[in-house]
Amino acid sequence: MKRILLLGATGSIGLQTVDVIEQHPDQFCLVGIAAGHQVDVMQKIIDKHPTIQVAGISDVSKAKELSGVTVYSGNEAMVQCMENCEYDLLVNAVVGFRGLKPTLTSLKKGIDVALANKESLVAGGVLVRQTLQETNTKLYPIDSEHSAIFQSLQGNRSEDVKRLIITASGGSFRDKTRDELSDVTVEQTLKHPNWNMGKRITVDSATMVNKGFEVIEAHYLFDLPYEKIDTVLHRQSIVHSMVEYNDNAIIAQLGSADMRLPIQYALCYPDRPVLKEDHPLDMTKTMDLNFKEMDYVRYPMLKLAYEIGKKEGNLGAVFNGADEQAVQLFLDKKISFLQIEESIEQACKQAKYIENPTIDQLETTDAWARKFVVEYWD
Amino acid sequence: MKRILLLGATGSIGLQTVDVIEQHPDQFCLVGIAAGHQVDVMQKIIDKHPTIQVAGISDVSKAKELSGVTVYSGNEAMVQCMENCEYDLLVNAVVGFRGLKPTLTSLKKGIDVALANKESLVAGGVLVRQTLQETNTKLYPIDSEHSAIFQSLQGNRSEDVKRLIITASGGSFRDKTRDELSDVTVEQTLKHPNWNMGKRITVDSATMVNKGFEVIEAHYLFDLPYEKIDTVLHRQSIVHSMVEYNDNAIIAQLGSADMRLPIQYALCYPDRPVLKEDHPLDMTKTMDLNFKEMDYVRYPMLKLAYEIGKKEGNLGAVFNGADEQAVQLFLDKKISFLQIEESIEQACKQAKYIENPTIDQLETTDAWARKFVVEYWD
Repeated sequence: MKRILLLGATGSIGLQTVDVIEQHPDQFCLVGIAAGHQVDVMQKIIDKHPTIQVAGISDVSKAKELSGVTVYSGNEAMVQCMENCEYDLLVNAVVGFRGLKPTLTSLKKGIDVALANKESLVAGGVLVRQTLQETNTKLYPIDSEHSAIFQSLQGNRSEDVKRLIITASGGSFRDKTRDELSDVTVEQTLKHPNWNMGKRITVDSATMVNKGFEVIEAHYLFDLPYEKIDTVLHRQSIVHSMVEYNDNAIIAQLGSADMRLPIQYALCYPDRPVLKEDHPLDMTKTMDLNFKEMDYVRYPMLKLAYEIGKKEGNLGAVFNGADEQAVQLFLDKKISFLQIEESIEQACKQAKYIENPTIDQLETTDAWARKFVVEYWD
Repeated sequence: MKRILLLGATGSIGLQTVDVIEQHPDQFCLVGIAAGHQVDVMQKIIDKHPTIQVAGISDVSKAKELSGVTVYSGNEAMVQCMENCEYDLLVNAVVGFRGLKPTLTSLKKGIDVALANKESLVAGGVLVRQTLQETNTKLYPIDSEHSAIFQSLQGNRSEDVKRLIITASGGSFRDKTRDELSDVTVEQTLKHPNWNMGKRITVDSATMVNKGFEVIEAHYLFDLPYEKIDTVLHRQSIVHSMVEYNDNAIIAQLGSADMRLPIQYALCYPDRPVLKEDHPLDMTKTMDLNFKEMDYVRYPMLKLAYEIGKKEGNLGAVFNGADEQAVQLFLDKKISFLQIEESIEQACKQAKYIENPTIDQLETTDAWARKFVVEYWD
């Protein structure tokens, strides 16, 4: 029985993780959950899973509404959960920079992490890599693209990889030119053609910041140089990503747009028990699949991600912090869609570079980037 | 240094195997070759590979034209080569039923086989399976479809497989109805839309007998029941085959229509050194990919293959023997395209069933099926 501690339990990935755990009661049990403020959703999960011992909630004012478990609240709630319950795998489905600290904390405890929190690697890649090496722990990717790559790497040697090919749907505005992006609305941006996801990631898909994040994540997850990480436009989101080998073979993972597969694979690796999906892929009923070369002029954020990714240091934290803040300003209708890009570009230009940042320096960098963006548009 | 004995050296797969070996002189050397009658081609290979010690040639009259090596000739030449040279891997690229005996002989010597000879498994599957179990040897598939499945199975448990999905281009007449098949010519049949192959396999692709062979081969290679082996129409021959798992993930291998990849993978497994191909696949330059449900009414030979495959025994030898003879009659313009199907159907109906045939009984069955077809149209 694998004991799971789930951070970000009330979000899209969190709830699907609960579903996967409930599909395999003989293999997994939830021993702790943490979330931001959705007390009702948390209490429902707690009531259904008597194995849960601890719960963490960011919103201090709502902590007393939870019952039946030991409750921790505030900024340190997630780490307190980790320190006060015994678990075998951390599922980190937190959204944003705040997911980095729990990842590092778990790895330092010697416990593997199933990682949906992109920012752990985008902002903290250097630190996470160092911690993985020191502790001999493992990350299991929860992301359709990285899971596909992880699956496509099985049984092969890293040195035989020619390149990873991350597929990109192109996001909400893939059929628009850059000129047509100047006056797009929040509502238009939030309509992703293929995936039903959280707000920030949907905006990040439209700017391709998300694909940039994925390139950086892939670099750290699979320990490959950026020269071996490519992206390709694939509108249908059926091929979730591919690996091309030195013998020219391409291994790919195909599937429906259902995150429960990568979640389950991360939890069960390397096994593949039966998974109940609402609409499993039927290849004969899907539309034609095609692949187009990535257009880095159309998507400058992706190009920027490669540049700052190669420089490493604290620049990922700048890139991410600026994006988190800019997307929030966009969702609040304070800046336009293209001004998200401008925010990130300017922040990366102005940031003070730190080659080997500590977690404290990354937190300072993150705060600086957010402040920079707010003041830039003030 | 892996010492290779290559049977069927002058055919399409044989010559490409020589090319792969020449691409990796540090890893492989040819110690023996065998072929039917093309003395000039054989001598060229012998001259280029001083490591070759033995050569086998079926055509006794041409044996004396070979020089520089020990030469065996006649029906037993292949087995004599195997007995008179030390080798680490047999590459069996023989076409037809006569490839079965060398496969069995090598496995009994405890030496693995890289198998391009479909008939070893179609006609002799029961015997080969039994020999594999007794000798703890392995088969490595040289066939684009089975290599793709083999690659897509790496790192996964057999019990997690939901089904194998073998792709089929549909062959030369995929755009014709059955009514339109009554008067097609040999020349039309030999124009395969995607692959440049030998004559018999090109005809077998048009009748889908070849896909039926592949279903039976997959059953023995991967030890899965026929219920878990599906076929799907995929005109582009880019996805070489797929494996669907119980978690609904589909793992696929994509590549160009170049047999050197499956050959090299069989030789180098599980490594993937650099392979020089003339036209490696570029996903962004390929046409759209699509997949359609297989039409078993349009392709009755495929349906028949499942039926006789499930019955096992000597029926695969009947199916194959009748097809070898009928294709020859068709190429000689003695029977029509649709009469190939009739030949096979009738032979399978009339054959005497033997549940656990010996190699002698399979040889008798093969001879009976050929004679039956000749007499049927006489």
